[in-house]
This record gives sequence, structure tokens and C-alpha cells, in this order.
Amino acid sequence: MSELIPQLRSIVGDQGVVTGSDLHQRACSYWDPSPLHAKALVRPRSTDEVSQVLRLCHELGQPIVTHGGLTGVVDGTVVSEDELVLSLERMTAIEEIDPVGRTAIVQAGAVLQTVQEAVVEHDLYFPLDLGARGSCTIGGNVATNAGGINVIRYGMMRELVLGLEAVMADGTIISSMNRMLKNNAGYDLKQLFIGTEGTLGIVTRAVLKLKEAPASHNTAMVALESFESVAQLLKFMERKLAGHLSAYEVMWRDYFQAVTEPGWHRAPMGRDYPFYVVMEANGADAEADAAQFMIALEEAIESGMAVDAVIPKSVSERDALWAIREDFEAITEVNPTFLYDVSLPIVHMDEYIQQVETSLARRWPQGKCYVLGHIGDGNLHLFVSPGFGDSNLHPQADQDVYEPLIKYGGSVSAEHGIGLEKRGWLGSSRSDPEMELMRLLKRTLDPKNLLNPGKIFEL
Amino acid sequence: MSELIPQLRSIVGDQGVVTGSDLHQRACSYWDPSPLHAKALVRPRSTDEVSQVLRLCHELGQPIVTHGGLTGVVDGTVVSEDELVLSLERMTAIEEIDPVGRTAIVQAGAVLQTVQEAVVEHDLYFPLDLGARGSCTIGGNVATNAGGINVIRYGMMRELVLGLEAVMADGTIISSMNRMLKNNAGYDLKQLFIGTEGTLGIVTRAVLKLKEAPASHNTAMVALESFESVAQLLKFMERKLAGHLSAYEVMWRDYFQAVTEPGWHRAPMGRDYPFYVVMEANGADAEADAAQFMIALEEAIESGMAVDAVIPKSVSERDALWAIREDFEAITEVNPTFLYDVSLPIVHMDEYIQQVETSLARRWPQGKCYVLGHIGDGNLHLFVSPGFGDSNLHPQADQDVYEPLIKYGGSVSAEHGIGLEKRGWLGSSRSDPEMELMRLLKRTLDPKNLLNPGKIFEL
Repeated sequence: MSELIPQLRSIVGDQGVVTGSDLHQRACSYWDPSPLHAKALVRPRSTDEVSQVLRLCHELGQPIVTHGGLTGVVDGTVVSEDELVLSLERMTAIEEIDPVGRTAIVQAGAVLQTVQEAVVEHDLYFPLDLGARGSCTIGGNVATNAGGINVIRYGMMRELVLGLEAVMADGTIISSMNRMLKNNAGYDLKQLFIGTEGTLGIVTRAVLKLKEAPASHNTAMVALESFESVAQLLKFMERKLAGHLSAYEVMWRDYFQAVTEPGWHRAPMGRDYPFYVVMEANGADAEADAAQFMIALEEAIESGMAVDAVIPKSVSERDALWAIREDFEAITEVNPTFLYDVSLPIVHMDEYIQQVETSLARRWPQGKCYVLGHIGDGNLHLFVSPGFGDSNLHPQADQDVYEPLIKYGGSVSAEHGIGLEKRGWLGSSRSDPEMELMRLLKRTLDPKNLLNPGKIFEL
Repeated sequence: MSELIPQLRSIVGDQGVVTGSDLHQRACSYWDPSPLHAKALVRPRSTDEVSQVLRLCHELGQPIVTHGGLTGVVDGTVVSEDELVLSLERMTAIEEIDPVGRTAIVQAGAVLQTVQEAVVEHDLYFPLDLGARGSCTIGGNVATNAGGINVIRYGMMRELVLGLEAVMADGTIISSMNRMLKNNAGYDLKQLFIGTEGTLGIVTRAVLKLKEAPASHNTAMVALESFESVAQLLKFMERKLAGHLSAYEVMWRDYFQAVTEPGWHRAPMGRDYPFYVVMEANGADAEADAAQFMIALEEAIESGMAVDAVIPKSVSERDALWAIREDFEAITEVNPTFLYDVSLPIVHMDEYIQQVETSLARRWPQGKCYVLGHIGDGNLHLFVSPGFGDSNLHPQADQDVYEPLIKYGGSVSAEHGIGLEKRGWLGSSRSDPEMELMRLLKRTLDPKNLLNPGKIFEL
């Protein structure tokens, strides 16, 4: 320790190293307000400083946990007293926006929403969007391969990153700052750092793929009688709005009822339908797109796929519809409530949810299970409340949620990652040879096991 | 050899091993009709057989070159007498098409066009498309991260593969046959096998991402006065057709004139414009989309971005426009003609091409340089004809084409890969640490250097 701290200070300056009470004034995460404990927190100002810090840590065998916006939900940024925290909070620059090539070059500490807003000034659009937009960072989005609400049209973060700069465990800088949609000059090394949760390198800069800003936004909430209709309507809208459908968010009845209880959100339609969908389409022509959207909805209702629909007449009405989907505090204020993020093919979803609900009801008759999902992405979120007890019950809920996924080829993590929380279940989604290959990559690229050690899997 | 062949026969059957004159009756590639020479060609029927073959080769230290459709253009499938060819030609099944999840599970030997046509029967669409569609295989498309004409909207092959099965050098089967858009359960191992040209594993099956079949297709050829207009019009059409523009193919004047010489294609408009673009949009509503497309084109002409436009009135007229872009035999029948595939940011393209043309004109005053490109992807193709000589002149052309890319952050391969042909220039697009990391991956995953050895880089 006596060796580490002064050397860190000599690399990043006195302001760049946080220890003691200054450190404890920081929270562990967005969700966990308890004081942060670690050997120190280091705040480099450049890729070169990150490289020097890592080289030093490599020499000293010092493990490192990288911190971004700390909005992750799988204990991917948990730190022990022996670990050093590396924060990208002083690397937040938006270095360049190219309106012709439609790219943005940003430092990893930049907050997602800041990037979204900066590109709008150039009539461009960065489509990654998720609830944590105001806090999460581009580096964290890369490291966790963030998903969110627009994946159905624009893909995950992986599809939105053209180039990347990262620092490896020994301090080597891998700069692959490609700006083109097409580049097959050798291995696509950036893939090593996308979605690997900081275990193979620390992302320092990225080249993001932008789109022209859409000129029209059409939103609706519809009610449906069955999951079959939910799946049919998705296909129907995809076809009718070819390429324009950007979000298709499904809420099961229990979820909808919970968040529209008195004191929470106003229900814009009856509260007893089995399913609700919030959908959105982005296009180019306000008038023509609105007409096309309306015609598609009318057809959906005439054919019986949808049984009710609400179209917002103002931005605030639109925001109110989205709030029902995005603000689930009515659910999470109950303790304990366990949040899940799984994926499986759409054809199995209905059966899967029925099975989970049956198991949970048998286990905890007074419990609740609230479901919503980006079904076009194969992605469901479940909130499980046993109705009593505490976090000790988590493993039992895990079993009911994760075990039935196996037979459907599902995944224990759709978009949240693995961190520490899901580590014990990773093997149910991945085969032994896959696990071995992951470990081989980790041992090869981080032979001293210094980068976010223990996260995703144990070596 | 005496040991290898009988053991191969015992794995794949007598029909599965081709040697001697049967082997020599095969051509080296789509482009090179000379007889194939190799130790043998093995044709496994299943992933398990591929695994057994690789395990055997690993024991014997036998190097392997994988063959797909053999339409590659960078000497990525060249075989020496000491090497074994592994062909996926008996693994061509389309195993499953899921219209709800919009996925297809196919074996790696399936031909791209066969897959395209099979999914159409389910009103679905597989958007990867390139000139070699009738011969190239899905495995080859994965191994080379194929691009083509629809990347601007749908991405490269990498973006169209949800899951993958591959066999590693020691015979280990890595089965990551994910079917969901979202799956963050650990490292995304399939990335190791996409675009690595068969050097890290042999792809045996894939889960492909499909789209709903578009109901409308609008095509136009336009003429433009400057590259600035070409770049402006791309942005303009992207905005006006938000999400519907699927192709934007640019031809420089020399290219257009060469392929519309008497005896070749009929020019649908004047032949003296500096630039021509073939563009296409796919949508959902034949009437509304056609109107929107027409309005956008009219605006483009009124504002001066485009100076002439032709809209095909029939499928055969549409095909005739596309043939100008896709059939460049008028150029390649001249020997020698060197084909290039580079990428660089759009903002630098005009200057780059002028520079290349100047260098080439100085070097070979009687030579020609024909340029076309998927500029939205950053991708240009150049055909360089010195006007005399033979393939010995290739290195000189390489220098004029590749060297100026360096200062623009360009790439010596946009979509064709590296193979043997571009190996010497890879270092101009990638840094030393990147090259070291590629070698580290290769040494780790293929420690005996048996999979397509020497391709992309030398160890």
C-alpha cells in the first residue's frame, strides 16, 4: 500500500487518488448507498494515465475494479478492501462528431444522456437508450453490452460501437478506433472488450455509430387478450412499419395493475386486460408516418389482435405512457423484490412464464411475480416478491426463474450481464467447453487475474 | 499420409475423402480454374465428424484449409500439397426456420442464395446480399464477415449471426447456438470465429437473424456533379427515408463509362456525369413508399444535389440498372486488372481517390483506375489496370492504393478479408500491439498452427 498510493499520485496527480474518508463519502453504487471501501480510488485523465496505472498494478499484482456510472444491477462493480477502484469520471470528453460519416468519438466516462444530447445538435441520433441514461457511462455500456428499449431496431451496444480503445491488464493500449461500417483488416479485437464486464481490459474511448435524427415519433399503448396476439401483433407491426418500429414493450397484467395502483400512474385504459404493449415507431415524415401508424393500429384492432388502444396527443401524454413501462417503483418499494433479466425464444415465453408463476405460487402463496419485456429481443424482466422474508430467499427465486430456461435454450442474462450475482447460474446457460474457452481467454489476456477478478466466473 | 487417409475414411466414410485425380478435377477456386492439389479433401457430414477430423489432425500435426464456396478474392483458401482441405459441401441443411422469433438455423455449407430463397417462403428476409450469392456459403460468409450491398441498413454478417457452432483446432466443439437478440451470459464467444477467416476454428452451424420480408422496393439511378453532392445526397436520403434506405452504391465516371461501352450495358442516362448512384429502399407500403421515394428524389433534383435520375418501370429495368453496378466484366476482362477493397471515412474519400489516381497516372500514364463503392459503409472498390504487363505489377499498385490510406485511418480490407494477398499490408492498418494481440489469440486457440496457417498474418 505504501508503495502503491505514492506511485499512483505520481501518475495521476494528488487530485487523482481518493482515499480514506473522501472515499467513504462515495456510495458503493446507484442502488447501494453504503460507504465505498477500497484500497483507493484512482481517477486517470487520459488513456496514457490508465495505461501507466495498469502497468504499475501489474508489477505490484494489484487487482482493479473499474467504475462507470454504477447503475449495474448484477454486482459487477463490487469492491473489496484489497482492490483498487479505477474510475473514468475525469475522462468524459466528446472528442469529435462527424455528421457526414455519422460517428462520434467519446471518452469512456461520458454519460450516455450527454452523448445522446450532444449528437442531437448535429441532427443525429444515438439510439442506445435505457432507464439509467442519466447516470450510466459509455464505457459501462460497452463493458456490459448494454441493451435497452431500442434493440429491436438498432441492436445492442455491440452493434453501435465501430471502434474502441482499451487498456489491457499489463498496460498495453489496444487502439482500434475504426470509424467505418466495414473493416475486415484482421481480427475484430474490440469484441474482446464488449460485454466482458471489465475482465479483459478497461475501455477508454469509443467510436459510436450514429443515425440521422428521425423526424417523426409515433407511440401507442394497446391492450391484448393473449400472448399469441402479443407475438402476432409484433410481427404485424414489424411488417406494416418495415424498419420504423423501434420499441415494442410488453407488460403482463400483474405488472400493469401494480404500477397503476392508486397513488402511482394513471391507467389510460382498463386495468384488466391480460397484456399491454407500448410501441413506438421513428420515421421521416410526421404526417405520412402518423397515418401509416394509425392504419396499422386500426387493422390490428379490426382483426382482433388488439382489443384497445391509446394514442398520446402530446409529449406529456407520451411520457405518461412510457412512465408506466419505465417507472416501477410501486413494485420495487416492496422488500424484498428480486429483479430478473432473462432471454428465450418468443415461441416459448408464454409457457415459460406460466411455469415460473406456478412454481413461485407453490413456493410462496402470498408472493407476487410481475413480468414485462422487450419480447422482440427475446428479453423478459421479472420482479419476484415472496411477500415476506429477506434477501436470503433470493436463491430460491433464482431456482424457479432460471431452471426452466435450460430446456428452452434461454439465457440467465439478456442485457444485465453476470457480475457476481449470476455467476453461480452461468453454467446453466453455457456449456462446459464454452466455460473453458472463457477461462482460457481470461488467463491469456489477464494472466495475473487483476481485472475485475471473480466477476462473471471464477478462474 | 498412409496414416491420415485411412483414418479419415474411417471417420467420414469412403465417399468423404477425395484424393488423386478426383481431387485434381476440382478447381482451386471460382476464379482460378487450375487443378486443386492438396494432401486430400475431406467432406464431413456433421459437426461431430468435423470434430473427429480435427482431433485426428491435431494428433498428427496436420494443417487444414477450410473450403466454402471458393468465391473469396484474397487468396484465403489457397492450399499447399501438404495441407488437408476440409469442405463443408455435405453440410448444407437448413435445419429450422422460426417465423415468430425470425431466426433460421443452417449448416455452414448452405449456399447464401438457397438460404435467402428458403426464408422468403415464410415471408421473411435474410438481408446479407453480395454478387457471389449463388456460390458463397454461410460458413464462408461468417468466416470472412461478409458485407455486400445492404450493409448500410442491415449491417455486416457479424450483425446477422445470433448464434454459432464452431470446432476448434483440437476438435473441441463450441456450440453457442443462441437465438435471441439479447444474450449477455458471459463472453460472446462466437465473435472469435466471425471474420477470422478460418484461423481460429471451423464454423459448422449458425443461427441467422431474419427480418420480415419488405413489401415495397424502390430503386433509382441518379447522376451527380460532385463528390460533395454524393455525400450530401446520402445524408438527405437517409433522413427522408428514415430506416428504409438499404443500398447506396456510387460509381465514379470512369467506371460508369467502361461498363456502358458499346457491347456492354446500355447507359440509361448521359455518360459524362462525374458520379452515378444506384439506390434502393425497402418498405412496407408499395404506394406510399413509392410516393415518398419520388418526392425525395424530386427534392434532391430541385435543390441541385442530383442532376438527373432514372426510375425503373419494371423488374427487368431495375435489374438492368443493378447490372451496371454489379457486372464489371468489361473492366476485369483486361489483363492485368487488380481489384481493391478499402475503407475510409467518407469525408476523406474524394481527396483519397484523387491522390490514388494521380499516383497511378504518374506511374502508368496509359493505365486506368475505375472506382465504385458502398460509401455509406466507408467502402470503396478500385480496379487498377496498368495497361500493360502482368501480375508482377501488383505490388506497385498496392503501394499507390494502400499507402495513402494510413493518414486517413483507413483500412486495407473493408469486406474481402486479408487472406494471403493483403498480409503484407495488414500492418499499415493495425498497430503493433493489435498485431501482437492477434498473434496471441492465434497461438492460444490454435497452438500447433493448424487452421488455415499463414492466412491473415504469419506467426
